[in-house]
Amino acid sequence: MSEDAATLEAFRHFREKMNTAILEGGNLTINRFFALDTRAYEDGALDAKTKELLGLVASMVLRCDDCITYHVVRCREEGVTDREFYDAFAIALVVGGSIVVPHLRRAVARLEELPAS
Amino acid sequence: MSEDAATLEAFRHFREKMNTAILEGGNLTINRFFALDTRAYEDGALDAKTKELLGLVASMVLRCDDCITYHVVRCREEGVTDREFYDAFAIALVVGGSIVVPHLRRAVARLEELPAS
Amino acid sequence: MSEDAATLEAFRHFREKMNTAILEGGNLTINRFFALDTRAYEDGALDAKTKELLGLVASMVLRCDDCITYHVVRCREEGVTDREFYDAFAIALVVGGSIVVPHLRRAVARLEELPAS
Amino acid sequence: MSEDAATLEAFRHFREKMNTAILEGGNLTINRFFALDTRAYEDGALDAKTKELLGLVASMVLRCDDCITYHVVRCREEGVTDREFYDAFAIALVVGGSIVVPHLRRAVARLEELPAS
Amino acid sequence: MSEDAATLEAFRHFREKMNTAILEGGNLTINRFFALDTRAYEDGALDAKTKELLGLVASMVLRCDDCITYHVVRCREEGVTDREFYDAFAIALVVGGSIVVPHLRRAVARLEELPAS
Amino acid sequence: MSEDAATLEAFRHFREKMNTAILEGGNLTINRFFALDTRAYEDGALDAKTKELLGLVASMVLRCDDCITYHVVRCREEGVTDREFYDAFAIALVVGGSIVVPHLRRAVARLEELPAS
Repeated sequence: MSEDAATLEAFRHFREKMNTAILEGGNLTINRFFALDTRAYEDGALDAKTKELLGLVASMVLRCDDCITYHVVRCREEGVTDREFYDAFAIALVVGGSIVVPHLRRAVARLEELPAS
Repeated sequence: MSEDAATLEAFRHFREKMNTAILEGGNLTINRFFALDTRAYEDGALDAKTKELLGLVASMVLRCDDCITYHVVRCREEGVTDREFYDAFAIALVVGGSIVVPHLRRAVARLEELPAS
Repeated sequence: MSEDAATLEAFRHFREKMNTAILEGGNLTINRFFALDTRAYEDGALDAKTKELLGLVASMVLRCDDCITYHVVRCREEGVTDREFYDAFAIALVVGGSIVVPHLRRAVARLEELPAS
Repeated sequence: MSEDAATLEAFRHFREKMNTAILEGGNLTINRFFALDTRAYEDGALDAKTKELLGLVASMVLRCDDCITYHVVRCREEGVTDREFYDAFAIALVVGGSIVVPHLRRAVARLEELPAS
Repeated sequence: MSEDAATLEAFRHFREKMNTAILEGGNLTINRFFALDTRAYEDGALDAKTKELLGLVASMVLRCDDCITYHVVRCREEGVTDREFYDAFAIALVVGGSIVVPHLRRAVARLEELPAS
Repeated sequence: MSEDAATLEAFRHFREKMNTAILEGGNLTINRFFALDTRAYEDGALDAKTKELLGLVASMVLRCDDCITYHVVRCREEGVTDREFYDAFAIALVVGGSIVVPHLRRAVARLEELPAS
């Protein structure tokens, strides 16, 4: 993981700080997108847990470590178990191929930083 | 959609025919990968329906029309409702951006070819 | 180009029809995203012409033919000249590599379908 | 495959025609890139056959059907055998995942259009 | 940002050092590509400022932090204002989706390292 | 390179540790994929050296630094010379464009960490 995300704490701090800076930039399109992004994962026809799993797998096949970190944390908060995580990882790996493996390693490292569900 | 996938029927025919040709190629790595690909979506810690939704969203953000067609069909077979489809589409759209929109159009067109859940 | 986009006319018809279907799906996140997408290209600190060029190059390096078609048309409407188009194509080609070439071919074919600026 | 590439003949015709149109556009950066693209695959420290295989696998993991068609033809011309093709396909599939499968189907269909090596 | 790019100064140092090493490698295709890459952003039918904005947005949707850093610096040198930057960021975000957000955070952090335009 | 890959030694340590953790997760699909991944690069119709070069170029155009590091090391072990590396780099650069350059820099830095072939 990069320096601004070396630990979960560093990731959260940098994320919070820069999100604030971006929103203060005052660009209406960007600010509305951020609101939309939050809204998309709320309970709906699919529940929040399923949506977070969708976000996690999408982040893995697109290979975005920060996005993976975010959704690993949120999935855990929604009660995703270890075996469920690995089932989701398996889909990401089969769809996205070995290019996903380095991100899988970092996802599992993140998971180990969190308290068990 | 491309000519070999102009209708769901044409897609299925071409897919079936070429999968057979590929497996007859006799490459062990490829043949094992195909087996693995099937296995990954079977009921496990996550059920088949959730896994197919994961496959659908992964296919949408990676923008693979044939993969989307396949998972739209499988999701419908697993009982995914229209509102659940749209919730999954929304995650794919927010994660992947407007570049996903043309594939969303074709996904909805496919959905209209299928009997309702 | 795929069958639903064989001509500019076919592309426009399919796009219009499916956008209507998607919006009628009634998913709030998706509908708001569509509104945001339109808004992003309006005159602001950067004018609409520059923004459409940004959308064109982004679509080329992400290799989305339908998105390219859309922005080629919009750029022409904003008065982008042939030489300006080729300058933008050159950036897309150098950033994205030879993998962009097939999309460049189709972009130029689209350009030839349009009246000159 | 898209309409402009429904057969190998259609692909070659469209490619030839549009490459001419692009070069006549007279953008120096683009024209030099095209020259560079040709040059990169000539015999060097690695021979042309190996380089074409590299181009093929790169095209498969980036999922560009036209690029795949081009390199399948060139690989055959350089004497790549069926079993060597399948070994290269296997690397592309393992690195790129199941998202590569639809392109693999079309690659094998292209291969069947060509005389055996 | 990765360790070799923790600060703008570290990024510049590593970039300079490795570019020199690469050019000394003496591969004609690579060396010509580097020349082409520089040439593509010079004033032409589109001016250097517009071209750098195109390079910036292309880098953001392809999610390359080092490329983003380079173009943020160059855009600033060409006089891009904060509000223009945010307009360009908004296009990148809408086209590329939330997967662009972590790169947007780092782009804004880079911008804060630079003197105002 | 990220902190867990700052040196070749750090990369190897983290890779080894996390691969063990992943395999102990006990997901059959994932574990079989890892076996398949190893198998794909063994001598076959194409020899291991050619296959590693294919893996290297695939990793470069998909822009995965850890994958590049792995294949640079393996290519060196298979006797790939500096001039052969640069020929492979040139294909990756032409296919993938300037977006590959930052990864090329890191690939060359990795190569300099290894004993000459």
